[in-house]
Amino acid sequence: MSTTEAAATHGYISDKDRYLARLKRIEGQARGIHRMVEEDTYCIDILTQISALTSALEKVALGLLDDHLKHCVVGAAQAGGPEADAKIKEASAAIARLVRS
Amino acid sequence: MSTTEAAATHGYISDKDRYLARLKRIEGQARGIHRMVEEDTYCIDILTQISALTSALEKVALGLLDDHLKHCVVGAAQAGGPEADAKIKEASAAIARLVRS
Amino acid sequence: MSTTEAAATHGYISDKDRYLARLKRIEGQARGIHRMVEEDTYCIDILTQISALTSALEKVALGLLDDHLKHCVVGAAQAGGPEADAKIKEASAAIARLVRS
Amino acid sequence: MSTTEAAATHGYISDKDRYLARLKRIEGQARGIHRMVEEDTYCIDILTQISALTSALEKVALGLLDDHLKHCVVGAAQAGGPEADAKIKEASAAIARLVRS
Repeated sequence: MSTTEAAATHGYISDKDRYLARLKRIEGQARGIHRMVEEDTYCIDILTQISALTSALEKVALGLLDDHLKHCVVGAAQAGGPEADAKIKEASAAIARLVRS
Repeated sequence: MSTTEAAATHGYISDKDRYLARLKRIEGQARGIHRMVEEDTYCIDILTQISALTSALEKVALGLLDDHLKHCVVGAAQAGGPEADAKIKEASAAIARLVRS
Repeated sequence: MSTTEAAATHGYISDKDRYLARLKRIEGQARGIHRMVEEDTYCIDILTQISALTSALEKVALGLLDDHLKHCVVGAAQAGGPEADAKIKEASAAIARLVRS
Repeated sequence: MSTTEAAATHGYISDKDRYLARLKRIEGQARGIHRMVEEDTYCIDILTQISALTSALEKVALGLLDDHLKHCVVGAAQAGGPEADAKIKEASAAIARLVRS
C-alpha cells in the first residue's frame, strides 16, 4: 500500500511528522525513567516523570482518536451498513480502554 | 552518595532489576508505537498499544509508590517532626498526579 | 420538543430505563458515602466506595458515549457538512474530558 | 466507640463538615444527572456533568487519602511492627484502586 493510500485510509497522515516527533520524545522519556531507576534517583522524581510520560501518551491517544473519528468513522457512517456499526463498536471499545488505562 | 547508600535511602533497590527489565520493555513498547505510526498501522491498533503502555507505566508507578511508602514515608514517620509532614505532603502530591494523569 | 422527538434525537432512549435505574443506584452510593463520613467510617472503606462509585459513573458515561456515537455522530456524518465536523469535535472534547477525569 | 475516639482514630474529623458539604453537593450532582437522562438532555451535556462529578469525587478521595496517610499511616509507622506493614499495604491497595478507577 502506498503512503497516499494509507493516508486516505488511516487519516492521521497530515500530522504524521508531528506524531512521530512526539513519539520520539516519549521514547526518550521512557529511556530517561529507566536511567533514573538505574541511578537510584529519588522515587518521587521518578513518579513525576512517569506522570508526565502518561500525560504525553494520553495526548497522542486523544489526537489519534480524534483523527480516527474524523476520517474512518465518518467515512464508514457515510458508507452506512454493518461496516458503520462495526467501526463505532470498535471506536467505543478503544475509548473504554483509554478511559480505564 | 554511593549506590549502597542510595539503596538504603530510596528503598526500591531490592526489586531494581525487575524494575529495570520492565522499563526496558516499556521503552520497547514506546519504540513500537513510533514504528506503528511510521508504517501507517491502523489507528485502533495503535490506541490498543498506547493503552497497554499506559497500564504498564501505571503498574511501575504503583510499585514505586508502594516501595516509597514502605521505606521513606515509614522512616520519616518514625523519625517524626516536620520531615514526616513534608514526606506525607510530597507523597500525597505524587498520588494526586498519578490519579489525574 | 416532545419526548418522542427527543428520543429520536438523543438516541439513548432505548436503554433509558436501565440508565435511570443505574443512576438511582449511583445516587444511593453517593448518599452512602456521605453517611460513612458522618459516621466516621474507616477511611479506606470510604475510599473503596468512592472507587466503586467512580467505576459505576464511568460505565454510564461510556454507555452514553457509545449511544451518542451510534446515533448523533453517525447521523451527522451522513448529513455531512460543517455539522458533521462540529459533532466530531464535540465528541472528541467529551472523550478527552472523560479520559482526564 | 465515641465520636471523639473515632476522630482520634480516623483523623479526618477536623475537616468533617467540609467533607459532608462536598458530599452533599456530589449527591445533588448525581441527582441532577438522573434528571438530565429523564428529561432527555443532550448526551454531551450529561457527559460533561459526569466528568464534573468524577472530578469532585476524585478530590474527596485524594483529601481522605492524604488525611489517612497523615494520621493512620504515620501513627502505625510510629507504633511499628506488622501493623505498620499492614497499613501501608492497605493504603497502597486503595491508591491502586483510585488510580485505576
